[in-house]
Amino acid sequence: MYMTQPLHRMMREAPDAIAAIDGLDALSWQQLRDRVARNAGALRAKGLEPGEPVAILAHNSVDYLAWILAIWWAGGVINPVNLRWAASEIAYSLDNCGTRILIVDDKHRGMVPAIRESTSDLRRVVSTGAAGDTIESQAEWAQGIEPVEDALRKGDDHAAILYTGGTTGFPKGVMLSHGNLAASVLGALSLNNQRVTDRYLHCAPMFHIGSLSGIFLTLFSGRCSAFLPAFEPVAMLEAINSWEITEFFVVPTMLKMLVQHPRFAEFDVSGIRHIRYGASPIDGALLDHAIELFPNAHFSQAYGMTELSPVVTILGPEDHRGESRTDLRLRSAGKATATYEVRIVDAEDNEVPRGEVGEIVARGPGVMLGYWKQPEATAEALRGGWMHTGDMGRMDEDGYVTVVDRLKDMIVTGGENVYSAEVENALAAHPAIAACAVIAAPDEEWGERVHAVIVPRAGEAPSPESITAHCRTLIAGYKLPRSFDFVDALPLTAAGKVDKNALRKTLKG
Amino acid sequence: MYMTQPLHRMMREAPDAIAAIDGLDALSWQQLRDRVARNAGALRAKGLEPGEPVAILAHNSVDYLAWILAIWWAGGVINPVNLRWAASEIAYSLDNCGTRILIVDDKHRGMVPAIRESTSDLRRVVSTGAAGDTIESQAEWAQGIEPVEDALRKGDDHAAILYTGGTTGFPKGVMLSHGNLAASVLGALSLNNQRVTDRYLHCAPMFHIGSLSGIFLTLFSGRCSAFLPAFEPVAMLEAINSWEITEFFVVPTMLKMLVQHPRFAEFDVSGIRHIRYGASPIDGALLDHAIELFPNAHFSQAYGMTELSPVVTILGPEDHRGESRTDLRLRSAGKATATYEVRIVDAEDNEVPRGEVGEIVARGPGVMLGYWKQPEATAEALRGGWMHTGDMGRMDEDGYVTVVDRLKDMIVTGGENVYSAEVENALAAHPAIAACAVIAAPDEEWGERVHAVIVPRAGEAPSPESITAHCRTLIAGYKLPRSFDFVDALPLTAAGKVDKNALRKTLKG
Repeated sequence: MYMTQPLHRMMREAPDAIAAIDGLDALSWQQLRDRVARNAGALRAKGLEPGEPVAILAHNSVDYLAWILAIWWAGGVINPVNLRWAASEIAYSLDNCGTRILIVDDKHRGMVPAIRESTSDLRRVVSTGAAGDTIESQAEWAQGIEPVEDALRKGDDHAAILYTGGTTGFPKGVMLSHGNLAASVLGALSLNNQRVTDRYLHCAPMFHIGSLSGIFLTLFSGRCSAFLPAFEPVAMLEAINSWEITEFFVVPTMLKMLVQHPRFAEFDVSGIRHIRYGASPIDGALLDHAIELFPNAHFSQAYGMTELSPVVTILGPEDHRGESRTDLRLRSAGKATATYEVRIVDAEDNEVPRGEVGEIVARGPGVMLGYWKQPEATAEALRGGWMHTGDMGRMDEDGYVTVVDRLKDMIVTGGENVYSAEVENALAAHPAIAACAVIAAPDEEWGERVHAVIVPRAGEAPSPESITAHCRTLIAGYKLPRSFDFVDALPLTAAGKVDKNALRKTLKG
Repeated sequence: MYMTQPLHRMMREAPDAIAAIDGLDALSWQQLRDRVARNAGALRAKGLEPGEPVAILAHNSVDYLAWILAIWWAGGVINPVNLRWAASEIAYSLDNCGTRILIVDDKHRGMVPAIRESTSDLRRVVSTGAAGDTIESQAEWAQGIEPVEDALRKGDDHAAILYTGGTTGFPKGVMLSHGNLAASVLGALSLNNQRVTDRYLHCAPMFHIGSLSGIFLTLFSGRCSAFLPAFEPVAMLEAINSWEITEFFVVPTMLKMLVQHPRFAEFDVSGIRHIRYGASPIDGALLDHAIELFPNAHFSQAYGMTELSPVVTILGPEDHRGESRTDLRLRSAGKATATYEVRIVDAEDNEVPRGEVGEIVARGPGVMLGYWKQPEATAEALRGGWMHTGDMGRMDEDGYVTVVDRLKDMIVTGGENVYSAEVENALAAHPAIAACAVIAAPDEEWGERVHAVIVPRAGEAPSPESITAHCRTLIAGYKLPRSFDFVDALPLTAAGKVDKNALRKTLKG
């Protein structure tokens, strides 16, 4: 399998259909293919070596998509840069894999001098907008350039390097092959009922594999990709309305912001047929609200991680409605896709009995090639041929997997394991708590103690005592929070999850 | 990807659900996995080497399925034997790839002595029934055997050797990898809307890749496979009725035999949700009849060949109903699946303009590893990275491919190309003709002449003059048949297609 395949295939099925759209651009498959072949020609003319990584630092756009495909077409490897990172972190990830070429948009070109200062390998920076000091423009690059033929890298050939885990020590570059990415796409396609007229809106940042996989899914089903630079509720509602969007991916937090937006009723969202979400389960009340406001939509949840290209389980539409819907299922992440096997194992990698908590491990063609230049971390993660996710979970009798906690978010207090998610669920049921996060705090007596960070509802000020009394009715005594912080908002990662590492730093500082 | 994956995955989702059923056996996923692991243990105990082919000569059954999976589990390569072949042809194919072990059922054990006489490599013959002279029984084999772990061959590892083209010179062993077969399954799954309760009835012979791919599709979607030893209309209607079948694959000839059967009305076929067909297009009248009798069924056509693992295009349900259905579309084989690119090329491998006839070529992860020990034939078939199908066809503006003829069935008469299918279509429209086939006859004057083999309708005796007059209103003069044979029935290949090679032999003899 090769990730440029849809460009070839769609030239025969629908060259004039719109392949990609954003606020500035709308390209047919033919135009997208032509731009890709020309961009690839420019990369080759500048000396790109086969298998060489090229970085992209930009908001979502048609240009971003065209560069991803052009890097593959030219024979390179994509290195999509995390937009939340500081210049020094970006420089580390570029140098780590010897990135010599960086594509940048107008929004992010201001970071270029700082990045340049900290890198030794970076040679060329190409702007999707105007040229500038030490920055070439893609328009200049395209001058006199002939389109080239597709390098047709495929199968086990390296396709992407995606840096993850930057919040825990140094980032690791996850290497994914063309075959890895294609396996993920096809596994997801097997549960998808697509139409030629469907349009998928991509609003989560494109350096994140959750967004990338949505884009690949759209490409391989020959549908139109629509891009918003970033998530913003009104821009999203406007796009759905005016671009005739039929599908999008969000995290539940974003979905909540959408359905609770005071201007929601101004827009026609009746064309939405499928809402995909991930990063966390959805609660029943939010789902009910969303079903009411998106009456024609199916809902599905995907669970995965970069190292798995990423989707490994899906909670399908049938589990979101009718008889199959139960609160227990809704709290799960669904079942393995057609391309994966999933197991729950103990610390010795033995499968645990059904219903017991253990580490979630997965095996299949989407498992990464490895971590860039980290053979020991790779061997550790892939021991026994299974990717060890670091997520704790349980599996029910029908194969549904429920993610209980991140392994590293587990709190070991007085020798007992406490899963932060369980404490958070108890806290979230308190009427005066709007949001919360539970982390381990160092504790002289207990090794670690359960620490809760609380965002009260507007106008409320719950006391630690009332919270403890409430939790005591729901969870065991050793799981109760022993200390509290009250804050206005929780820090979020780029993927929209609560940033527990940031909270831990606050705790130490 | 590894083809044993569903056995692992379904152990977590539904170990007790029925995985496979036939007239004798009904195995759950757990039981199937156990039988596979034990059969694999027996193969290893008998000295099976990694990558070694094991042949199966048998009617469809749960045992056949269990041996396919066991051969992979043990680390071997499947070699499913063509049931239509004579002992000498079978012996050729076994020796060609060094097959030492043959699995045989009771129906076919009578051929073993003749096969043994002509082979030099064959060491062991194992019966799925009783033991006998020079034949061991699988029950004996299983004694004292411990189940073994899956060898987990995958990706480019050789999985199957399938002999094709036996009717034109020596058979060629098409080598397919685990990745080839998985790509085909996933491409088909992407257009499939499966339910856990679905049951797929396999009635076409299992040595044919069309049947194998239906079985793999069923496995990977975690559904139940049901087996009939061979196609027979009443047995099929009984199975649909009593086994609660929801899906099956047939060639249009078989579908016609089903819907025209006088006992059809005795059976409840309302549970059929999907009818897949292949080998040739369906005519509108037959489709209408089938839609009337299978009111809840979707229809889809798959086109492909062994070398492509096999499915490369699909004509989906939407093209069989409502506005999308047109006679032109129905005569086509549909569009490329998500895993393939398809092109129409001339003799120099240049793409021809849309609508013009050329050879159908395809590129994708399902393209075979090659022909066994035939590097020249492999290089010729795969030149330029595309599999050359030998089928002539055209592509419309929307990417729909219509198969016009086999390249080798094309008749070159007086320098003009005549596609036999076009002449056959004209003949089939004659009211007194029930069936027909057109082939090239050697001709001193024209090189080749158009020769028609005609099956008249019961009670009719159309004259060559009336047929020629009829055809003249439909096709050009140089395409008219110049000679005729009138017969009671046409010979069919194992795949249910008209056996033109048999007709050509008759012509010469």
